[in-house]
Amino acid sequence: MSLSSRFLISSTITGTMASWLQIPKNSPFSLANIPFGIISSTKSTSRVAAIAIGEYALNLSTFASSGGFAQLPDFQPHLNVFSQPTLNAFAALGRPVHRQVREYIQNVFRADTPFPQVLKDNASLQKEALLPLSEVTNHVPMQIGDYTDFYAGLNHAYNVGVLFRGPENALQPNYKHLPVAYHSRASSVVTSGTPIHRPNGQILANPAATPKLPTFSPCKRLDIELELAAFVSKPNDLGKPVNISEAEDHIFGLVLMNDWSARDIQAWEYIPLGPFNAKNFATTITPWVVLLDALEPFRATGLEPGDRDSLLPYLREKRAANVYDIPLEVEITNAGGKPTIVSNSNAKNLLYSFPQMLAHHTITGCNMNPGDLLGSGTISGTEPKTQGSLLEQTNGKNPLKLADGSERLFLEDGDTIVLRGKAGTEGNYVGFGDCTGTILPAIKLEY
Amino acid sequence: MSLSSRFLISSTITGTMASWLQIPKNSPFSLANIPFGIISSTKSTSRVAAIAIGEYALNLSTFASSGGFAQLPDFQPHLNVFSQPTLNAFAALGRPVHRQVREYIQNVFRADTPFPQVLKDNASLQKEALLPLSEVTNHVPMQIGDYTDFYAGLNHAYNVGVLFRGPENALQPNYKHLPVAYHSRASSVVTSGTPIHRPNGQILANPAATPKLPTFSPCKRLDIELELAAFVSKPNDLGKPVNISEAEDHIFGLVLMNDWSARDIQAWEYIPLGPFNAKNFATTITPWVVLLDALEPFRATGLEPGDRDSLLPYLREKRAANVYDIPLEVEITNAGGKPTIVSNSNAKNLLYSFPQMLAHHTITGCNMNPGDLLGSGTISGTEPKTQGSLLEQTNGKNPLKLADGSERLFLEDGDTIVLRGKAGTEGNYVGFGDCTGTILPAIKLEY
Repeated sequence: MSLSSRFLISSTITGTMASWLQIPKNSPFSLANIPFGIISSTKSTSRVAAIAIGEYALNLSTFASSGGFAQLPDFQPHLNVFSQPTLNAFAALGRPVHRQVREYIQNVFRADTPFPQVLKDNASLQKEALLPLSEVTNHVPMQIGDYTDFYAGLNHAYNVGVLFRGPENALQPNYKHLPVAYHSRASSVVTSGTPIHRPNGQILANPAATPKLPTFSPCKRLDIELELAAFVSKPNDLGKPVNISEAEDHIFGLVLMNDWSARDIQAWEYIPLGPFNAKNFATTITPWVVLLDALEPFRATGLEPGDRDSLLPYLREKRAANVYDIPLEVEITNAGGKPTIVSNSNAKNLLYSFPQMLAHHTITGCNMNPGDLLGSGTISGTEPKTQGSLLEQTNGKNPLKLADGSERLFLEDGDTIVLRGKAGTEGNYVGFGDCTGTILPAIKLEY
Repeated sequence: MSLSSRFLISSTITGTMASWLQIPKNSPFSLANIPFGIISSTKSTSRVAAIAIGEYALNLSTFASSGGFAQLPDFQPHLNVFSQPTLNAFAALGRPVHRQVREYIQNVFRADTPFPQVLKDNASLQKEALLPLSEVTNHVPMQIGDYTDFYAGLNHAYNVGVLFRGPENALQPNYKHLPVAYHSRASSVVTSGTPIHRPNGQILANPAATPKLPTFSPCKRLDIELELAAFVSKPNDLGKPVNISEAEDHIFGLVLMNDWSARDIQAWEYIPLGPFNAKNFATTITPWVVLLDALEPFRATGLEPGDRDSLLPYLREKRAANVYDIPLEVEITNAGGKPTIVSNSNAKNLLYSFPQMLAHHTITGCNMNPGDLLGSGTISGTEPKTQGSLLEQTNGKNPLKLADGSERLFLEDGDTIVLRGKAGTEGNYVGFGDCTGTILPAIKLEY
């Protein structure tokens, strides 16, 4: 599909883009963003595609069927992708199409839109298709075939390694040669706002005792993991690795992710095959997929770029600026209490980029499908209060204080955790919105 | 759906069931079996459901649309499940329906069928719906949402543990308390006959050298793993564990599985999060799903039933006979050479049953969907030539001899591996058919 409109603007934004729609200056969904998601509403209970802008969602199914894309002739054969209950079909159309559609929608919303008749001056379509975010329900935006969680947050891997093995042997010998990962659980990926039951499972109440005898218990060391995650758009066939030079064009966009972790269940179960039940009870993602093009202005150099020449060639990227400068934060709120920001990190804190993860994942010939999800691993800084997990902050020993004076080693029932991330500056933010989950008590089971 | 026909026979078979269809006495698909799969053919290129019987597949879509299920009135509202490209919708109908349909089809094929007009005396429907297996193409029978591989083969875990840690510490402390597992890769599950490219990846050519520097290479230690695998039928909601007493009814049926493994890639990558690229390039399953009801006559007691009382209650089953007595074999054929049976094992060699695996998997609240796949782990015996992997047989040092005189430590390009398993006796076998894969050379990549 070629770019036919002379009105399209560059995806690299400088300065604030003004819209005829009122967009709060602190909104993560400025005109510079235009993230895609799946919504339903009381108006339209079936799941359809939408974009978020300011405090509104634009129902793309309604928009498309009302001639909203009339000024984008090349896209006409594909309008049906927005009436589907996931973004998989839209994602599969490929990056040039995503880019064209995003830029077209930006043009529709610009104060000086070349197409005022489409929406700006079309009160009835505004009423029909522009829905307050507070009135829509978000859904997991893609049908996730497989979800893989990487471990590319060098500082997190180091911090956890220090706890278990001391600073000398904190990082395993393979860590700086390949993006370590494990296959995780796709079925339990939920969207922001879904309450999380504390999991039950086997834990070792007294790890020092011999013989080691587990007890059945609600998890006592329930933790968060602050991550970014990428959705795959372009598939590759079984047996056909994705070359590192093409990997970025296989990625649809990013979301913020909380990879809830049951540390005590994990400690007992994970040898020798890795985390399993410790991770499979829930993973929360933000519902709006931020396209890579929207993040392009925020490219940054990741950790230890000087070491990249020592990587095997299949992992070498041409440019050092292979990650994104996105400030991230973790907030915890006691039941009925005041919110406390317990951590400030940045998405720059990765040793490997998503294209590198994808190149590694497929080097064996593993096939990826649209909707596959790749987690970055926990994104921690090096300073106090910059860690992406409680394990790193407290080591289960040194409590952190919340605003209401209560203390936390790990999460308690009733706690609400919000992850946030947005790049850019006021009026021009490109962000993910809130990634929220409230901890419910463990389900009581009888045997 | 209630069982309404007075003609239905018991699912527990004794003696040989005779059919009007000629079924070879050594066929794994006797009248006692009736496994379900997905086929296409030159006659009908779209994927539809079928059962296998002797040397034929019965196209259930054609059979259903031609009134084949007319004598099963309760099933009429569900006939469309057989026109779908996967068995997910049929599986989701639940075990009582699977049982009823299987028994009805057995009745249709019995020599003394109470419904001769349906197929026995209906030459035109036979011509239309009974297709020689040699003329149909099999497909992965279910859309697999998530694939989990367990490690329930006690002898395999012990044998591998001895190689790495010696006999004293062969089994990890958790092994006899929970069914160890890892999430694996669903997208690369393929059906029997699909050729397997030797994967490329990072290996440590000299593990003793310091510092440890990996090289990029085709896998040099490519191995098989002989496994059974279960497909889930009945879903459970997120946060709602499946009780051990109900777990069996959540399982649709079993297939034979070869969990191809790149031992050298695994050795370098797997610490600390488990196997990843070592397993994600391909997993081969047999295309015909054998229902648990068909295996019921072959129930057997698993390993160490005396230890079961020490299990935590959520894993305790009422009956000790929780696995199946199914002789299994592994055959390797050199390119252009003669087949060699290199191993004879038995599906009894499991410490945990599939219901136990499912109860453990969901104890955290993890949700399962129809089509989810659970692998048993490698099924090895305790004697020489009973192991389910080459690693155990050769330890990479002691070659096994093939019939043509060549030797193997691990798989070579051109090798064809066939796994087989069938329970019962001549004329009455309940089996899986061949689980076949031929090794193709690694793809040459340039960077």
